[in-house]
Amino acid sequence: MNSLAEKVISGDSRALARAITLVENRSGDYLELLKDLYREGGKARVVGITGPPGAGKSTLANVLIHSYRERGFRVAVVAVDPSSAFSGGAILGDRVRMQDRALDDGVFIRSMATRGHMGGLATATSDVVNVLDAADFDLIMVETVGVGQDEVDIVREADTVLVLLVPGLGDDIQAIKAGVMEIADVFVINKADRSGADRVERELHSAMTLAGVDDAEWTPPIVKTVATKGTGVEELVGAVENHAAFLSKNDAAVKRQRLKYGRKFRDLLAERFLMGVRKHWLSEEEEEKLVETFLRREGDPYSCVDKILKAVEWEKKP
Amino acid sequence: MNSLAEKVISGDSRALARAITLVENRSGDYLELLKDLYREGGKARVVGITGPPGAGKSTLANVLIHSYRERGFRVAVVAVDPSSAFSGGAILGDRVRMQDRALDDGVFIRSMATRGHMGGLATATSDVVNVLDAADFDLIMVETVGVGQDEVDIVREADTVLVLLVPGLGDDIQAIKAGVMEIADVFVINKADRSGADRVERELHSAMTLAGVDDAEWTPPIVKTVATKGTGVEELVGAVENHAAFLSKNDAAVKRQRLKYGRKFRDLLAERFLMGVRKHWLSEEEEEKLVETFLRREGDPYSCVDKILKAVEWEKKP
Repeated sequence: MNSLAEKVISGDSRALARAITLVENRSGDYLELLKDLYREGGKARVVGITGPPGAGKSTLANVLIHSYRERGFRVAVVAVDPSSAFSGGAILGDRVRMQDRALDDGVFIRSMATRGHMGGLATATSDVVNVLDAADFDLIMVETVGVGQDEVDIVREADTVLVLLVPGLGDDIQAIKAGVMEIADVFVINKADRSGADRVERELHSAMTLAGVDDAEWTPPIVKTVATKGTGVEELVGAVENHAAFLSKNDAAVKRQRLKYGRKFRDLLAERFLMGVRKHWLSEEEEEKLVETFLRREGDPYSCVDKILKAVEWEKKP
Repeated sequence: MNSLAEKVISGDSRALARAITLVENRSGDYLELLKDLYREGGKARVVGITGPPGAGKSTLANVLIHSYRERGFRVAVVAVDPSSAFSGGAILGDRVRMQDRALDDGVFIRSMATRGHMGGLATATSDVVNVLDAADFDLIMVETVGVGQDEVDIVREADTVLVLLVPGLGDDIQAIKAGVMEIADVFVINKADRSGADRVERELHSAMTLAGVDDAEWTPPIVKTVATKGTGVEELVGAVENHAAFLSKNDAAVKRQRLKYGRKFRDLLAERFLMGVRKHWLSEEEEEKLVETFLRREGDPYSCVDKILKAVEWEKKP
C-alpha cells in the first residue's frame, strides 16, 4: 500500500491534507492513493447541505459540527464554493467562523475550488469524500452553494440531503423548490426568526403535496432554525438521525448508493479518457489548431469527434 | 445534405422544432444534422441571461424579444430550467407570458430539460444554439437559473452575458457576485423599484473595484430595470449593443470563441466515448454488476476505469 494512504488511514491530518490536495488537483499518484483508500471506506455517513447563497449553510454546518462532536463523532466538512479569485474573500467570513474548531483533530474542514476539473467538480468532490471516509470520519458534510445542476449532482451523492431555505426570498421560493424538491430529505428554514418563516413553511407543505412527496416512504420534515443562536439545532439533529434510521431499515439507501456509484464510474471514465486523449493523441497546441478550423467553419467538432472515436477499437472488448 | 437540415435552413419552424428535439435527445441522425447545420452557423449573436431564481429573467427576456423584434431581428430563446416533474408547473407562468409572441415566426422559444444528458447539459444546449444559428436567428438568448457551475458553463458560452440581481437578497449579494462576477458583461439590477436597489448598485461597484474588473478593457455597466413595466429596457439594449460593438473591434470575442469551442469539443468527445462504451463494451446490466462490487468494496471504480482504458490503443494516433 501507498505510504501516504497508510498515513491517511492511521489518522495523520497533515497526510490527509496532502492526499486531498493530490486528489483535488489530479496530480501525483492520486489514482493509486484512491484505489488503496477506497477499500477502507464505506463507513461514513455523508450529509449534504445546500440552499441559496446567504441561507446560512456554513453557520449551520458549524453548529452541526459542535453537536456531533458532543456525541463523539469525528466530523469533516467539504465546502464547495463558486470559484473565482474573488470568492475567497467573499466567503472568508464563514470559513473563519468554521475554523473555531481548527484545533480539534476530530474536525477537518476543507474548501474545494470549483474550476479546472477536467472531469467535473462532482467527480473530484466525491473522491475527496472517499478520502475522508477512509480517514475514519464518521460524518462528512458536503456544503454546496446555489441550486445549479452541478451543485445538485454533488449534494445528491449524500446519504441525507438538507435543503436550506430562508424567509424573504418572496416569489423565488417556488423556483428554488422546483430544483431541489426531489433531492431534499430534510428541509431547514433557517433565519426562522425573520418574518415570513411561517409562509415559507406553508408553501413548502403545499409544494410537497403537489409534488406527491408526502405520499412517498419518507416525508421530508421541515425544521426551523436560527443557526446563529443555535435555535432548533437539536431538532435538526433529530431529523438527520431519523433519516439515518429510516435508511438503515430500508433499501432506499442501497438504491441511492447504486445510482451514485454508477454516475461516479461514468464520470471517472470520461475524465480519464479526456486525459488520455490529451496525453497521447491531441496536444493542447493541436487542439487549438482544430478549434481554429471550427471558428472558420472549415471543420466542425462533430466530425472531429467521429474521427477520434474511430481510433478506438470497439470490437476489442476489455 | 440531410433533408431535415435543409428545411431548418430554409426557415421551416416545424422542422426546427423537430431538429431541436433530436439534438436534445441525442436521437436519430442528430450528428449528421449537426454537421450539416454547423457550417451554416456562426452568424447569430448569443446573449446569456443568468441570475438567482425569481430575479425576473424570463420577464426580461420577453421585453428584450419585443425590443429586438422592433429592430427587425429574428430572436430565439433557449430556457434552461432546473428539471423536475414539479418545475414544469412552477415556472409555467413565465413561459406562458413569453408565448405572447408565439404567433410571430421571427420568434422561437424553447425550454430545455436539465436531466438525462449523458454528456452534460452544456453540450446539448450549445448544440441547440448551433441549430438556431443555422436557422438564421440573429439573436439567441440563453436563460439559465441559478449560480451553479453548470449554469455558469452554459451562460459563459454567450457572446454577451447579462447577470441579473435583485434588491432584497441582503447579505447574499456578495456570494452571488463571487460566482458570476467574472462572467458578467452587463449587470442588470431588476425590480429596481424595490428598496435596496441603490445599495446593490454600490456593492456591485465596490465588488468590481475589488475584483479589478474596472481596470479591464471592458467595464460591465450596471443597468437598473423594472422588466414588468419596461423601465430601463432601452438602456439595457444600448448596453448590449455597446458590448457587441466592443467585441467587434477587439479580439476579446475571438478569444472567447476559442475557449468555447475547445470546451465544446472536449464535452462532445466525453459524451460520445461514454455512449460508445455503453454500446460496445459495457451494457447497463454489466455496469450494474460492476457497481455492486463497488458497493461491497470488493472492487473499486478507479481500477475498473484503468482496465477499460487499457483497451484503448493509445499508440495508434487517429
